[in-house]
Amino acid sequence: MDPDALAKAFVEHYYTTFDNNRAGLANLYQEGSMLTFEGQKILGSPNIVAKLTSLPFQQCHHSISTVDSQPSGNAGMLVFVSGNLQLAGEQHALKFSQMFHLMPTPQGSYYVLNDIFRLNYA
Amino acid sequence: MDPDALAKAFVEHYYTTFDNNRAGLANLYQEGSMLTFEGQKILGSPNIVAKLTSLPFQQCHHSISTVDSQPSGNAGMLVFVSGNLQLAGEQHALKFSQMFHLMPTPQGSYYVLNDIFRLNYA
Repeated sequence: MDPDALAKAFVEHYYTTFDNNRAGLANLYQEGSMLTFEGQKILGSPNIVAKLTSLPFQQCHHSISTVDSQPSGNAGMLVFVSGNLQLAGEQHALKFSQMFHLMPTPQGSYYVLNDIFRLNYA
Repeated sequence: MDPDALAKAFVEHYYTTFDNNRAGLANLYQEGSMLTFEGQKILGSPNIVAKLTSLPFQQCHHSISTVDSQPSGNAGMLVFVSGNLQLAGEQHALKFSQMFHLMPTPQGSYYVLNDIFRLNYA
């Protein structure tokens, strides 16, 4: 699979899981994974999923605008996403940007080593 | 220097150079450096600087809103930036997001291995 197609497939899988079964994101992170969410630093899959599942909204829908990817020079891949986040009951979607650093697993899959999320306030 | 301070120092240096002496950015990239600029992929310091110096505006000013950083697991550092880009003669600033993957040089400095830039259209 070419890197751009892999990045797009990851992004689709990630946000579909986020929007439908947030706790299922645990499988995409590992012990050394890092999330910086709106400036807050969180380490490790359990803490990351605890943060994501405790966000103050239940239903949401991510719409992806752009996906860019590059090899990170370490058998890994950088994925840069921009899009809109629609929260249930809110009139306007929120714009966001997010980057992932994916690293290969021994099983031939990928996990998220680095994850940085920011809302883009207008 | 702690990683967050290093990231902030890099960001300040990068955008000051961009706004005042764009050709000087050549020193921050190497032969294997990658830039994805609004979806266009460019490889290597000479091509990257040729792209940046040929952008259709002369004077600009970057204002930084947020800087996040994480170690990339490879002696490198990921830097994620959001901010505003004011072009000379334009009334409204453009919002942008950009990520850098910095790698150490033998001289104890850092160069940009990965650079992904996107405007955040409203």
